[in-house]
Amino acid sequence: MAGETVDYYPMWKSLDMDTEAHDGLLGAVGQMYGDMFLTQHNRPKSTSYLDNFATNLHSGRIKEMLDAKEQGRIKKIIGSFCLYVPEEIVAAAGGVEVGLCAGADWAPEEVEKHLPRNTCPLIKGFTGFKLGRVCPYIESADLVVGENTRDGKKKGYEFFATQKPMYIMDVPHVRTDETKQMWRNEVHRLAERIEQETGQKITADSLRRAIKETNDKRRALQRLGRVRAADPTPISGLDSLLITQAAFMDDTPRLTAAINAIADECEQRVAKGEGVAPKGAKRVLYTGTPMAVPNWKLFNIIEKAGGVVVGEECCTGSRYYKDLVDEGGETVDEMIDNVADRYLNIHCAIFTPNQDREQDVIGMAHDLHADGIIDCSLSFCTIYEMEAFGMEAAAEKAGFPFMHVTTNYSTEDAGQLKTRIEAFLEMI
Amino acid sequence: MAGETVDYYPMWKSLDMDTEAHDGLLGAVGQMYGDMFLTQHNRPKSTSYLDNFATNLHSGRIKEMLDAKEQGRIKKIIGSFCLYVPEEIVAAAGGVEVGLCAGADWAPEEVEKHLPRNTCPLIKGFTGFKLGRVCPYIESADLVVGENTRDGKKKGYEFFATQKPMYIMDVPHVRTDETKQMWRNEVHRLAERIEQETGQKITADSLRRAIKETNDKRRALQRLGRVRAADPTPISGLDSLLITQAAFMDDTPRLTAAINAIADECEQRVAKGEGVAPKGAKRVLYTGTPMAVPNWKLFNIIEKAGGVVVGEECCTGSRYYKDLVDEGGETVDEMIDNVADRYLNIHCAIFTPNQDREQDVIGMAHDLHADGIIDCSLSFCTIYEMEAFGMEAAAEKAGFPFMHVTTNYSTEDAGQLKTRIEAFLEMI
Ligand code: SF4
Ligand code: SF4
Repeated sequence: MAGETVDYYPMWKSLDMDTEAHDGLLGAVGQMYGDMFLTQHNRPKSTSYLDNFATNLHSGRIKEMLDAKEQGRIKKIIGSFCLYVPEEIVAAAGGVEVGLCAGADWAPEEVEKHLPRNTCPLIKGFTGFKLGRVCPYIESADLVVGENTRDGKKKGYEFFATQKPMYIMDVPHVRTDETKQMWRNEVHRLAERIEQETGQKITADSLRRAIKETNDKRRALQRLGRVRAADPTPISGLDSLLITQAAFMDDTPRLTAAINAIADECEQRVAKGEGVAPKGAKRVLYTGTPMAVPNWKLFNIIEKAGGVVVGEECCTGSRYYKDLVDEGGETVDEMIDNVADRYLNIHCAIFTPNQDREQDVIGMAHDLHADGIIDCSLSFCTIYEMEAFGMEAAAEKAGFPFMHVTTNYSTEDAGQLKTRIEAFLEMI
Repeated sequence: MAGETVDYYPMWKSLDMDTEAHDGLLGAVGQMYGDMFLTQHNRPKSTSYLDNFATNLHSGRIKEMLDAKEQGRIKKIIGSFCLYVPEEIVAAAGGVEVGLCAGADWAPEEVEKHLPRNTCPLIKGFTGFKLGRVCPYIESADLVVGENTRDGKKKGYEFFATQKPMYIMDVPHVRTDETKQMWRNEVHRLAERIEQETGQKITADSLRRAIKETNDKRRALQRLGRVRAADPTPISGLDSLLITQAAFMDDTPRLTAAINAIADECEQRVAKGEGVAPKGAKRVLYTGTPMAVPNWKLFNIIEKAGGVVVGEECCTGSRYYKDLVDEGGETVDEMIDNVADRYLNIHCAIFTPNQDREQDVIGMAHDLHADGIIDCSLSFCTIYEMEAFGMEAAAEKAGFPFMHVTTNYSTEDAGQLKTRIEAFLEMI
């Protein structure tokens, strides 16, 4: 997936990456991308943006950020692992936030010297990417912001912090007036910490612009989310997932324009009755744990089996875009509160109770005319595994066929998953 | 284990227990108690209190509480699953707090309809005890207080709350001035909720008395903890563990007197050089997840293999008794703050960072002249599994041989555990 004309090896070496191992990773991901994405039929033409994004993921995009940093257009690169770390704050202080969640296993023997084998693959993934020095996002990040969300991440960061400069946000697990205030304070503290890192003060203008730009990205994603209600659906789940994954890594205004272009084309396709899958293809709503690049396994299995994913209730899906930050507010403090309030309303399973997530799922299943719901947890993700029981009951009550799947990043269970998913698609 | 003269079946039936299944449970636990405790040689005579406690665990003790409730001497029975639920508050409002953690599997097929198979056995245990209606503590509890600590408990309570009236406390995961205040507020809210439940106001006098009584229990446990530094050690780990387990269930003043009597006898034994194991027996410090009745497996294996457990850094050990509540304070509010502050300082792995626990363990290993440290997690207990890595490094640095063990409530791994523990005792 390296670019054709530019030699990126000096850049990767300057980031102290293990370029040999990294070649292996790029080769494997490139192969997977080809097999999964490029074999799709009748994609919207504008998804060529995504192919280009994928090609430049570890090369052109990193160079662009490092160049911008050298030229002073951005001050710092801030890594994060969770939707609760507000990108508006980072952008307003002159930084750029990048998602560091890892969607593949790496260096498992090294990882298991520091983390239990029974750890969620996402946590093992980013730890392995760091220990193996194969992720240019991790290596180029000046500061990594973690959060006290799941047990595994909270404790996993204690090790990660021995490898990278980290700052930890404390996230509430219940929603009360008191935790709302506590969370606002926490976002204010993040703002201070990021200002200190970038050396640039957040101003009312810079924050207003960052809020507006991020909202524009979310509005574009909302548009795209809506076109998927059509039958035939104009765009695949795989491509839609990749677009949300890109939202954590790509340049915001450029990506927003690309998403709008894809949405334009999709709206035209809907008008013409053109789809990526035949009319009547079984429509699946996905809900569950986030899917980081290159964790495309489940979507690929569903869509290669003739189904189509019409929506994602997860952090690499609707939770990322469904709510906007209030664009009112005059002072920096007011606007930071607005940002905080929007983020506290993410319906992550770390909250108790979390009935709102069930309502979101059922609402999306109705709006997108889903034929069934597939709820997926990564192995050892206690909170999503536990919510699966309530989710199943909610789906049943609303009349949607439901399947829960537990998986990881290996390909070992692909055959078994395929069998289960084919049976589910048959049944719905 | 039922008492000999009194017929407890009417009481169990009045609690809507499944007496047939319960007979099976009592038989199994009675057998285990016989095999593990009564086969010990040279126990302090005063441990006959423990045998009596074990005999009356599901019968006499329950009757005593229910009688006291009927006679108005106690107002309500409040269940809890965690060290963070302050018993002083419950006692001061006229209630009695009982620990509901379960140390055995029960009704696993029923449990797995509501919880993932990969759930910590303690959580599956109390859920199974409830679903199978075999625990008179759960059944007699008027209100159960849960807490947002580990992911598994936090989400597991969402199901438990469909089975019993519950109140949930929110526990911080970091220690800052802000979370200290938040936690104080949380304990004040608990006080209000318990007052509402018992219909009895907490007064300065009642709270002062409750603090003093609980501190006296802790002081007695501290005394007993100290005598175990002697070689030969006067009392086994099994008996010591049961004493702390009793602290969650037994009548406070009576238990305090019994612990002091055992400590008296132990001090005399130390003076005479009498021990429960021969001088020079390998001395093990336990650290890890709590052990609820009847989870005596690991201690039994260690001690039957010729080792002796000389201390427990866990919630059914030193964390329960090492810190007292400040006995100062004039008003109810001041005293509640004192209670809160004592509890916030429990070094549970839910906190991040949690280096204090490492210091506690190393300090105890020194004070108690441990030859080695065994760190144990229940399966799928992410936070303790994760802390094991740092704990191993700390033990190594301090020069203590260290072994990490992951286990559950089944007897399946007993053979393998025995082999590993024998090898460890050999080595240290
Ligand atoms: S699922 Fe929850 S913890 Fe995970 S990234 Fe999303 S918000 Fe964060
Ligand atoms: S180990 Fe932590 S969560 Fe478990 S009972 Fe103790 S304090 Fe509570």
